[in-house]
Amino acid sequence: MLTNSVDQTLRRRADRVVPGSMWGHLHAGKLPPGFPQFYARAEGARVWDVDGRCYLDFMCAWGPNLLGYGNAEVDEAALRQQSLGDTMNGPSEAMVELAELLVETVGHADWAMFQKNGTDATTTCVTIARAATGRRKVLIGRGAYHGAAPWCSPSVVGVTAEDRTHLCYFDYNDLGSLEAAAREAGADLAAIIVSPVRQERELDQEFPTPQFANAVRAICDRTDAVLILDEVRTGLRLHLEGSWQPLGIEPDLAAWSKALANGYPLAAVTGKDHLRAAAAGIFVTGSFWCSAVPMAAGIATINIVKRERVIERLLDMGGRLRAGIAALAERHGVALRQTGPVQMPSIRFDNDPGLRKGDLFCQAALDKGVYFHPWHNMFLSASHGLAEIEEAIAAADVALAAVAERFGG
Amino acid sequence: MLTNSVDQTLRRRADRVVPGSMWGHLHAGKLPPGFPQFYARAEGARVWDVDGRCYLDFMCAWGPNLLGYGNAEVDEAALRQQSLGDTMNGPSEAMVELAELLVETVGHADWAMFQKNGTDATTTCVTIARAATGRRKVLIGRGAYHGAAPWCSPSVVGVTAEDRTHLCYFDYNDLGSLEAAAREAGADLAAIIVSPVRQERELDQEFPTPQFANAVRAICDRTDAVLILDEVRTGLRLHLEGSWQPLGIEPDLAAWSKALANGYPLAAVTGKDHLRAAAAGIFVTGSFWCSAVPMAAGIATINIVKRERVIERLLDMGGRLRAGIAALAERHGVALRQTGPVQMPSIRFDNDPGLRKGDLFCQAALDKGVYFHPWHNMFLSASHGLAEIEEAIAAADVALAAVAERFGG
Repeated sequence: MLTNSVDQTLRRRADRVVPGSMWGHLHAGKLPPGFPQFYARAEGARVWDVDGRCYLDFMCAWGPNLLGYGNAEVDEAALRQQSLGDTMNGPSEAMVELAELLVETVGHADWAMFQKNGTDATTTCVTIARAATGRRKVLIGRGAYHGAAPWCSPSVVGVTAEDRTHLCYFDYNDLGSLEAAAREAGADLAAIIVSPVRQERELDQEFPTPQFANAVRAICDRTDAVLILDEVRTGLRLHLEGSWQPLGIEPDLAAWSKALANGYPLAAVTGKDHLRAAAAGIFVTGSFWCSAVPMAAGIATINIVKRERVIERLLDMGGRLRAGIAALAERHGVALRQTGPVQMPSIRFDNDPGLRKGDLFCQAALDKGVYFHPWHNMFLSASHGLAEIEEAIAAADVALAAVAERFGG
Repeated sequence: MLTNSVDQTLRRRADRVVPGSMWGHLHAGKLPPGFPQFYARAEGARVWDVDGRCYLDFMCAWGPNLLGYGNAEVDEAALRQQSLGDTMNGPSEAMVELAELLVETVGHADWAMFQKNGTDATTTCVTIARAATGRRKVLIGRGAYHGAAPWCSPSVVGVTAEDRTHLCYFDYNDLGSLEAAAREAGADLAAIIVSPVRQERELDQEFPTPQFANAVRAICDRTDAVLILDEVRTGLRLHLEGSWQPLGIEPDLAAWSKALANGYPLAAVTGKDHLRAAAAGIFVTGSFWCSAVPMAAGIATINIVKRERVIERLLDMGGRLRAGIAALAERHGVALRQTGPVQMPSIRFDNDPGLRKGDLFCQAALDKGVYFHPWHNMFLSASHGLAEIEEAIAAADVALAAVAERFGG
């Protein structure tokens, strides 16, 4: 990394006018040296940093890039709407069309509402659940990420105890802790909010056991509480009708964002009929929640996902990537774990406190032009085809050799 | 209003797939009959509903439209950035440029951070204030609007008491209530959040008295609490350097959104140096907070506001509109009040419980193609020129005649 690089210069400029030079989940400060902070361009499966280096990208902007950066069909739909109007005195017809499309597509969805952030969607779900039940307690996974508002942020700096008074914590896939949390909430249980897959930073991913998912549903049924599925990260990548549909479990509410409009800013809440009145009775809004451009982009995105069988493609390509890396790891004698959905890859090394192997692996791959992430689940897009998977595996080969050389194979 | 209009058809379709058919501040349900819910197009100072009717618009999307809908220079900057990349693995150079521009432009701003919603910005301000002071209490105006999150929403449906445990209420421009709220907070006072102008629905607007604004600043200075100015609605319309700059009062933090990128979704927090470390220490983020397109639009917007002296134009045109309506009201013998900043008009009739005069006035103006609002402050844009002001005054003439005829002149 050259200290006179454009990225370094921008970081120094940013440091003068942005606290800590950057904030939030896109802060490159926790990535190994050499990872860029600033980006100049993105197209298909690739991103270019401000120094002109190109990477085959497996973060997909941490999820939003589902169809490839700058997907022509989505961008055309957005541009067409932009030429008519975006933020106006009310929504355009696109809002109704998008709500109809979600209702037609998503198993549990009888209605939809729209927001900007995933956090807007999860917070709206909790508010609807409390309005519907007249109760306050929310069961939430310990360590689970459901947004960055004071009630759910992973940091408690600047947060008051009261912001979380009514949260009861359970451990994912641990029925005992789930039942204990439900007992703690007692007659005041409003909702359980849960991720379709356990996807926590610096942990292996974990699919829900059928027992756990069924218990979540059963507790809600037994107590008339609301099951909120947080699809912000998984939505449109795991199962089009809803991530727990293959388990035969439907939530009462779901929160969506990230991939919903292929990078245009949009979030949504979908819900069942019995929560319609409660959803109509709360007050939630934002200056840009009804803007038409992201809704036009969302319609195009969902239609492409259906027509092009995008999820099957992600499964196929993700499976090939996982198999390729597993074979290489065996060949190099490097023990690693690939967990969770193949379309949201996670690569973590055995015996790797401090992530020294993970960091080296990612740095070496980055040198070969492939952008992997050491401690967060990654994302595939429809632009990741056979050639891209081969390119990624070739980079992983070099990177695993580096890990084997440094740490023993 | 035809019941087979496109708008009515869309409302019926929406009613099946959206709770209450619409939500939030853009819900047309509280407007007089005949006001559209859905929009097809917007350009300059005009909006077109889905039935093809065109209105000279004085809501400006409730604020975001500052330079005219579809401003060519802003849209070109946005399109140029869109062709490069929007939502990527990190920000583009535009984030640094925009932060630098805000620091250069806004009196108190030593740094900036970016979000999507005005509520994100106000919530971030409160979180920073609590992180910086280690205290919890926030003084807030009774009836003031600072967003739609559980801690500040105008509705308490689905909200818990604990969401507001640490709020202490004062009445705008009432020094006694302000001092009482500060005493209530005591040594736990973290911040005072205040609007530059009192702008509450169904109330006349009210400028702050110098005594009140100075007392807000003095209490914060005396107690080392944080003065948060909520510029979400006023930003870029009242004073480019900050709305309280003419009073000689600088906040420690300010929240911005709405007009910041002329309709592209963007919010910002600006702050003083002594809060930089606290701002760097909290965790706030969102999937689209670093997207490059709205930042490119924001840079273009601020540059145009400076170069074209937009605020002076809004003052001039707003002053002409106010004077024209005042003269007509006198001529028609209709008593009304126009309050607050002329660039954010408010027209309210004397002796008008239930807003029957206001509703009739707005309906009659709408029939003449001019979109006024009966119970919320309105907004001017730079696209409102002499011809538009004349057109609005001509419609107001007809509308005031209708009010005089129905209710007596």
